[in-house]
Amino acid sequence: MGGDHGPDIVMPGLLRVAERRPDVRFLIFGREDAVSPNFLKYPRLRSVSDFVHCDVAVRMDDKPSQALRHGRWKSSMWKAIEAVKAGDADVCISAGNTGALMAMSKFCLRTMAQIERPAIAAIWPTTRGESIVLDVGATIGADAHQLIDFSILGAAMARALFGIDRPTVGLLNIGVEEVKGLEEIKEAGALLRDISLKTMEYRGFVEGSDIGRGTVDVVVSEGFAGNIALKTAEGTATQLAEYLRAAMSRTLMARIGYVFAKSAFDRLREKMDVRKVNGGVFLGLNGIVVKSHGGTDDEGFAAAVELGYDMVRNKLLDKIRADLDHFHARVPPAPRSAPASADE
Amino acid sequence: MGGDHGPDIVMPGLLRVAERRPDVRFLIFGREDAVSPNFLKYPRLRSVSDFVHCDVAVRMDDKPSQALRHGRWKSSMWKAIEAVKAGDADVCISAGNTGALMAMSKFCLRTMAQIERPAIAAIWPTTRGESIVLDVGATIGADAHQLIDFSILGAAMARALFGIDRPTVGLLNIGVEEVKGLEEIKEAGALLRDISLKTMEYRGFVEGSDIGRGTVDVVVSEGFAGNIALKTAEGTATQLAEYLRAAMSRTLMARIGYVFAKSAFDRLREKMDVRKVNGGVFLGLNGIVVKSHGGTDDEGFAAAVELGYDMVRNKLLDKIRADLDHFHARVPPAPRSAPASADE
Repeated sequence: MGGDHGPDIVMPGLLRVAERRPDVRFLIFGREDAVSPNFLKYPRLRSVSDFVHCDVAVRMDDKPSQALRHGRWKSSMWKAIEAVKAGDADVCISAGNTGALMAMSKFCLRTMAQIERPAIAAIWPTTRGESIVLDVGATIGADAHQLIDFSILGAAMARALFGIDRPTVGLLNIGVEEVKGLEEIKEAGALLRDISLKTMEYRGFVEGSDIGRGTVDVVVSEGFAGNIALKTAEGTATQLAEYLRAAMSRTLMARIGYVFAKSAFDRLREKMDVRKVNGGVFLGLNGIVVKSHGGTDDEGFAAAVELGYDMVRNKLLDKIRADLDHFHARVPPAPRSAPASADE
Repeated sequence: MGGDHGPDIVMPGLLRVAERRPDVRFLIFGREDAVSPNFLKYPRLRSVSDFVHCDVAVRMDDKPSQALRHGRWKSSMWKAIEAVKAGDADVCISAGNTGALMAMSKFCLRTMAQIERPAIAAIWPTTRGESIVLDVGATIGADAHQLIDFSILGAAMARALFGIDRPTVGLLNIGVEEVKGLEEIKEAGALLRDISLKTMEYRGFVEGSDIGRGTVDVVVSEGFAGNIALKTAEGTATQLAEYLRAAMSRTLMARIGYVFAKSAFDRLREKMDVRKVNGGVFLGLNGIVVKSHGGTDDEGFAAAVELGYDMVRNKLLDKIRADLDHFHARVPPAPRSAPASADE
């Protein structure tokens, strides 16, 4: 029910996934009057889906507290998350209100025992391929222990998605010299360097310019700076696409050149297409939840669903649990700043 | 003496400025053996320059404290800053060590009486033109009063450089809803909205994606997130330029198209050229200091010098002083978190 277009992009998006991944099955939660017309349009989708009608839908402008108040136990968002908890679904995907989705996911699925706070991970296209960046906005601020949690979560996701045994990890900082940056980042870096985990290769500090370069597989940051980085990169990509469009339509010669190079431009557009890397993954919960961009189209929503599919296929949660055990076997449990439930 | 190439780019850069701005005069500080060969090459530059030999040069990898210890009173960097203090120069430009330049600038020029901490302002190309973003790395963290200081400094710079009477100002935050983000940002926003200064138009919160869009003339942030944003945008621009290059050389048709559209690509390259907007401006000191990118070439260094020239011509310091007086006439002096000298 969420996002700018609701079932009108979700349903054709699911159809695309069904065509590409024949073993997938969907549990669809929403208002019948909004969903049914789409089932009539896509009978193939109907055959791989179960539909559950829900009276209530979380609104895009609900604050998390409002959404919990009027949507808990009964909204389509809640029911979809609950299906993961009950084991009826392997992963929950929503294009809805991010704050509400995170609040409900935390309330319903709970944070993993060894994790202090969940994070939102984004997949970032780089000149080398793709990297994972987290946290991009679940929380503001993070202490050294939380940064290490994020490192473990991100490395497990890189292992599940990219098939790398020992992903490289960097902490986002300003300046790469050890003297610079925030105390908590230095502390996390020192600890990651000392323990030398077999599930990741800690590479030290990285700067904003390293993200797009693909210097490391996993970039770790607290959520404020991570969100600023993500949004700034999106803005810069949009800006440069606009420059390119303007440059290519300015003169006759440029327009002729554009015709010749059209297939190259199409490839480039695909590379710069934010829909293709659509999907923030909630990590650190007892279940996987994927947030699709609210403004995406059906192909973008399909990408978010397939991201969820791939993580389930590659047993992300098992990897996270094993990695956390490995870490805690190496490092005695440190005093935590607050009990995990304080977040909720 | 600073930057990756020292006098070999600084001297031809100055020559370019001398050719474009006939009323400019240079005071050049450096080691004679490094500077002299360039004077022989560029006699025209010699005729508009005074040269001061300095035995000591701050190294690019000196920590600020080291640079102060061995470079204070005598290094070329110190002497250049001191020339501003003494009134012998209107502006100091350096491609050297940023941390050392800021430490020496603070020590020599001192922070303005009504300003708590200096900031580094960057000029950011946008789809609408240019915006000013500060702080991009002088300090980590900022309270509400410092964010307001930065707003006043940035707005004065926009008035001096862009010739706008009442520049628009936004506070960089995550999410534009009033409920989100950090306490100090909310507090600064509420105060800026309440006082409604005649020297700026406060427009509320902006996100990372708004910077490249040119939503506001001045984007205000504490230095950690500001630096992450700047570096991430640089990285994204480099990344997309690489995609474009790869796409245009991949097939014969694309290469033919490239030939036709070459002048359009050249324009685009110029738009994406980070050298053209080269220069971080130190604001909040009793004097203007411009930091040129260390890796720039002569054209980039010339751009940094001309940025300094334009700010002096447009009386930036007078504008800042008048704007601070205007603000403090409207808002009774609030208790500050620490005396200005605590930073040094």
